[in-house]
Amino acid sequence: MTTQNPETFKALLDFSHHLADLSGPVVLRHFRKRIAVDNKAGEGDFDPVTAADKGAESAISRALKQHFPTHGLIGEEHGTHQIDARYRWVVDPIDGTKSFIVGSPLWGTLIGLLDGDTPLLGVMDQPYTRERFWADRKAAWGRDVNGKVVRLKTRACPRIEDAILTTTHPDLLGGGASLKTFMRVKQRARMTRYGGDCYLYAQLAYGFVDIIMEANLKSFDIVALIPIVERAGGRVTTWDGRPATEGGSIIACGDPALHDQLLEFLNA
Amino acid sequence: MTTQNPETFKALLDFSHHLADLSGPVVLRHFRKRIAVDNKAGEGDFDPVTAADKGAESAISRALKQHFPTHGLIGEEHGTHQIDARYRWVVDPIDGTKSFIVGSPLWGTLIGLLDGDTPLLGVMDQPYTRERFWADRKAAWGRDVNGKVVRLKTRACPRIEDAILTTTHPDLLGGGASLKTFMRVKQRARMTRYGGDCYLYAQLAYGFVDIIMEANLKSFDIVALIPIVERAGGRVTTWDGRPATEGGSIIACGDPALHDQLLEFLNA
Repeated sequence: MTTQNPETFKALLDFSHHLADLSGPVVLRHFRKRIAVDNKAGEGDFDPVTAADKGAESAISRALKQHFPTHGLIGEEHGTHQIDARYRWVVDPIDGTKSFIVGSPLWGTLIGLLDGDTPLLGVMDQPYTRERFWADRKAAWGRDVNGKVVRLKTRACPRIEDAILTTTHPDLLGGGASLKTFMRVKQRARMTRYGGDCYLYAQLAYGFVDIIMEANLKSFDIVALIPIVERAGGRVTTWDGRPATEGGSIIACGDPALHDQLLEFLNA
Repeated sequence: MTTQNPETFKALLDFSHHLADLSGPVVLRHFRKRIAVDNKAGEGDFDPVTAADKGAESAISRALKQHFPTHGLIGEEHGTHQIDARYRWVVDPIDGTKSFIVGSPLWGTLIGLLDGDTPLLGVMDQPYTRERFWADRKAAWGRDVNGKVVRLKTRACPRIEDAILTTTHPDLLGGGASLKTFMRVKQRARMTRYGGDCYLYAQLAYGFVDIIMEANLKSFDIVALIPIVERAGGRVTTWDGRPATEGGSIIACGDPALHDQLLEFLNA
């Protein structure tokens, strides 16, 4: 990680919370409402972009131009701005759009910050339940529905056989080799749960889930979550062990020893 | 439905909320805590009974003996009491134990009441988010995280092709014919989501999900949910169209026309 002086880091962390505070009400106006759903993806696919997503990203973009005009922005809806900036914010107002449209609270607003290519801080906000999860320089934190803040720590679980494995939806792994590999891990794991999107990473940082395996993630699906998992004691990489910041096929483990074992298993 | 005078119905409905109020704090003491997990099922299976489940059912049982000593109780932990009573309470303090142990909020406390063999009223309570869903004589209601109560109405969706299909976990359908049948419906449906347990029935009553297909349910997994779905405008039966009160293989649809079409498809 490159260095900032403490004042700078504090200002950036405060601003990341400010962006979550801005985004929440915009997104919530559309939660559990009948809304027109645009369809970004092709026929047969179903990847809705809601008015909420667009509105929140606009609000974030405006705040960024006002407070940190030299910073870059990588977002789902508005594309990339100032890609060569040292600091680039990576945002997704609704990670888990399908959960959102079926009325489930298992979605979240992701606000990450890259310093160069290193994830510096990240916020995962659930404005409906008022839960928020974030990382500062040294630790990860979770605020519950009552506003109580606790330090997040992943749990010890060195063996795949004892692990609780999760993924958002097996269909998102594609029909081919990735799904087969996932099913091989599933056969060894103690239990498997589907569903969750970004909420899964909060559960893992909290110490209730051991492995997350996903594929076809975008940068804005994962950058904000990396500091949260890592500063809670876990690890996040691609399935072949490279940095997760660009997205793609991602594994996250609460126990670094489990991460090692899983990488070995995946690449044997 | 057999008849009660309005005072009786009001007293029963109030008492169902009282039971949910009693159960919530007992269950919450164990949510997102490291707890000893008993394992009811055999080797390889994973069906935890938590201290929370047992404690809450004891509290409910005590309140029932005190307030309505002639009523029966059908529960997961304590078995069946006074099975021949006219009124039998059907309770499950934690429907969605696997969600509970992985720290997800998609579980709920189910409190149903049978009048003879007819589901009279039902409450689905989520004490962590403070959401509650219930049915009175004529309508279904949902209380959100802010305490705002709205009337629940299922949405119009007469065709499988337009439907959002859900089930808690495909593995719970068993490996055989039920899973194959589910997959045939999945191929026709617009979108499929996994995960949710009782929370799915709230989403369906709310008008955000169209079909729930499940198998191997117990009576206490479904009785409380039947009045909520039906008084929101939906239908709940077994896969072959019989009453759902005994559990087993269950379908719920928000649109009765979709229910007809699905029954025809399942039994063609």
